[in-house]
Amino acid sequence: MDSLPPMMTGTTTSPATKATAMPFLSSSSFSLRASKSSNLWLTRRQPVNVRCVSSSPAAAYTTKVSRNANIAKLQAGYLFPEVARRRAAHLLKYPDAKIISLGVGDTSEPIPEVITNAMAERAHALSTVDGYSGYGAEQGEKKLRTAIAATYYPDLGIEETDIFVSDGAKCDISRLQLLFGSNVKIAVQDPSYPVYVDSSVIMGQTDLYQQDVQKYGNIEYMRCSPENGFFPDLSSVPRTDIIFFCSPSNPTGTAASRDQLTQLVKFAKDNGSIIFYDCAYAMYISDDSPKSIFEIPGAKEVAMETASFSKYAGFTGVRLGWTVVPKELLFSDGHSVAKDFNRIVCTSFNGASTISQAGGLGCLSPEGLEAMQDIVGFYKENTKIIVDTFTSLGFNVYGATNAPYVWVHFPGRNSWDVFAEILEKAHVVTTPGIGFGPNGEGFVRVSAFGHRENIIEAARRLKQLYK
Amino acid sequence: MDSLPPMMTGTTTSPATKATAMPFLSSSSFSLRASKSSNLWLTRRQPVNVRCVSSSPAAAYTTKVSRNANIAKLQAGYLFPEVARRRAAHLLKYPDAKIISLGVGDTSEPIPEVITNAMAERAHALSTVDGYSGYGAEQGEKKLRTAIAATYYPDLGIEETDIFVSDGAKCDISRLQLLFGSNVKIAVQDPSYPVYVDSSVIMGQTDLYQQDVQKYGNIEYMRCSPENGFFPDLSSVPRTDIIFFCSPSNPTGTAASRDQLTQLVKFAKDNGSIIFYDCAYAMYISDDSPKSIFEIPGAKEVAMETASFSKYAGFTGVRLGWTVVPKELLFSDGHSVAKDFNRIVCTSFNGASTISQAGGLGCLSPEGLEAMQDIVGFYKENTKIIVDTFTSLGFNVYGATNAPYVWVHFPGRNSWDVFAEILEKAHVVTTPGIGFGPNGEGFVRVSAFGHRENIIEAARRLKQLYK
Repeated sequence: MDSLPPMMTGTTTSPATKATAMPFLSSSSFSLRASKSSNLWLTRRQPVNVRCVSSSPAAAYTTKVSRNANIAKLQAGYLFPEVARRRAAHLLKYPDAKIISLGVGDTSEPIPEVITNAMAERAHALSTVDGYSGYGAEQGEKKLRTAIAATYYPDLGIEETDIFVSDGAKCDISRLQLLFGSNVKIAVQDPSYPVYVDSSVIMGQTDLYQQDVQKYGNIEYMRCSPENGFFPDLSSVPRTDIIFFCSPSNPTGTAASRDQLTQLVKFAKDNGSIIFYDCAYAMYISDDSPKSIFEIPGAKEVAMETASFSKYAGFTGVRLGWTVVPKELLFSDGHSVAKDFNRIVCTSFNGASTISQAGGLGCLSPEGLEAMQDIVGFYKENTKIIVDTFTSLGFNVYGATNAPYVWVHFPGRNSWDVFAEILEKAHVVTTPGIGFGPNGEGFVRVSAFGHRENIIEAARRLKQLYK
Repeated sequence: MDSLPPMMTGTTTSPATKATAMPFLSSSSFSLRASKSSNLWLTRRQPVNVRCVSSSPAAAYTTKVSRNANIAKLQAGYLFPEVARRRAAHLLKYPDAKIISLGVGDTSEPIPEVITNAMAERAHALSTVDGYSGYGAEQGEKKLRTAIAATYYPDLGIEETDIFVSDGAKCDISRLQLLFGSNVKIAVQDPSYPVYVDSSVIMGQTDLYQQDVQKYGNIEYMRCSPENGFFPDLSSVPRTDIIFFCSPSNPTGTAASRDQLTQLVKFAKDNGSIIFYDCAYAMYISDDSPKSIFEIPGAKEVAMETASFSKYAGFTGVRLGWTVVPKELLFSDGHSVAKDFNRIVCTSFNGASTISQAGGLGCLSPEGLEAMQDIVGFYKENTKIIVDTFTSLGFNVYGATNAPYVWVHFPGRNSWDVFAEILEKAHVVTTPGIGFGPNGEGFVRVSAFGHRENIIEAARRLKQLYK
């Protein structure tokens, strides 16, 4: 299987099946190669210039490199591309449908000018001798790191040097997995953002997927449901090395209270675990729930935290976030976690785009902060429309108060079926709860990102569908 | 060691040592936490409110998470931060020194306006309802992928769908390592770009560092030296799963010929290996050396290729590159490598910044291509000045013809010593050859990136030093 001649592959550039314009073909090196490899050709080849016409797949050349067994464990596609695929299929079926997407948590409102001006200005500066800059620090520009520390962590003892600017939380989660390696065990909220679990599988931290329970082996799924107020019963959770915890939670839209996070920090400390705290939606918090895990005393010794400009400034395409790794966070041998994370960042990343970083500075200017608050406020009004819609139809909805997500309960139903029903009959894309974990079954996540007229129209169609 | 009380850590936010303004301290949850953890406190604590004054390190709280043994294998810092550290130390010693950096391969010339205008325009568009876009495809914008295929791979059978737009080669190398996992063995040119080796160590593909030979166990170091024209003697190289190959080579500046790359592809095919071909400097090729591995027939079945706008358009800070994974490249079980790479990209990356991608489209416009050629031409003139300088001083220099790097031979000398000598006496930063692998000993890499007046001044100082 490993050394079939090129004409067996069905590719159109194989020398035996298609002449190309490349100088190579007339050079002496080709004959050299052909003669040197003739042994292989003689043993397994079919007649030269006769293409394989069997209807079975052509016997293509395969390398001898084994597929990574961890990737083979992954189930189907990553959730959101799968949602996108189904949306595309729907559009093929109904080419005239005006689809409204309340699925992927993708921002819809323009980025405030104070921020885009900062980015355009930096872009223009890059074409001047004085304004040009090449490689930046892998950890991000000092000015931005300082501004992040001052804006989001005043009085919390988080310094500029604890902050690693990134191209977004998803990317930092992968770097985090490289940091911890394959010998750790993780816990996740169930349901949770699928990247925690998928990146753990890819890193080789898990066992096979167990079809019956819809879980991977060697991951702790911490049940979050209406019954426990979407905060896990920690007394029943075994110790793991890493605890991924997202608040306000994607997908349930619920924020953990100060009391709950204090329990979580204590739980981590008692177990010697490290919390990876994802607060990408912190600015959506309206009540007094903590916006950062570092508001909880002692958290610096057990937690790191990732955050992002994506959902505040519409930076989903611009790509900018940060991760805080306090110098107080230590491995069991006393070695600094931040020091190793720094090594990972320096080796596998070259810094966020300097233009995006200029945008980040724009975000943190007084006008930028105000503009971001306006954006967050706008999406929260959307949230209210969605909540009112489902509530008026008799559904139980959760989250929404402190997040741009509404977690709608369809008791006893398969969430992909609900997803399909809403897409088919209302041309509205949602996200099936099961995509976030087995305990998401029976729910769909409805995102509040979208133009107001689309939210209103989606509400109208949903009322039509479920009246 | 694992549960010492917070006041032992020397951090200023521990509740027992410093009162903070946080509402938490007066809430009932604090007493709850303090009493629940009292067992631990009683067993190992020192008297409360007495700070550790010993000169030995304070006994800080440590988690029970083990440090990743693979990261512990890494030697010292990543090369370029180490060079930067020594440069900073030099500046402390000579605050008035006008240091010229010919070290890190960092571009110095402004980005052509046709390209920055495209980026500024996209940034401004993001503040409009019609021009706003959120998440892009993880693989990059279709228009950009199409333009890359058309510009760099005409007639080579590489299609838009084979191309994954990235935020640069360094980042894609890490994603590549996630793709292959820990059970593969790699080969590298010796010397080579340090990220290949370091990312392999981090991924757990290697054994410990062997101080005596200055190599990691379970990596094949393919000797590249003046004696073999900087192309490895493949007849003496054992099979590995992956072969990292960079041409034009960083650091030696040499480009492999068509004959040599044909040998390499045949070698990979005979062994069932996968070549990871790094052609980040391809536009610097002046002779008829291939600019892409896919110019070699059959390469699509054994190679993937990474490339970057960094060194053509000055995008080192803007971050944009791409990786080609042909659909013909298959694992031993026939599974598509591209399909798994796509899964990695979708799970651990969210696409390059849309503004950078607009810049990429600017690069590939007719004016952009011309402007990039001008930049490449400018740096190549720098290269000639550096080559002439060292040659006139009687040194043997290599590379340079097809690359922005000059590989200067200091036979019998320690390359960190040479680095230090040039820094100390000429205030010029270079890169010690040993940083690229044991076979780089006795060389320094001199980068041709820099303003013309700095190159001329560096040449003057070097002539002074080595006359």
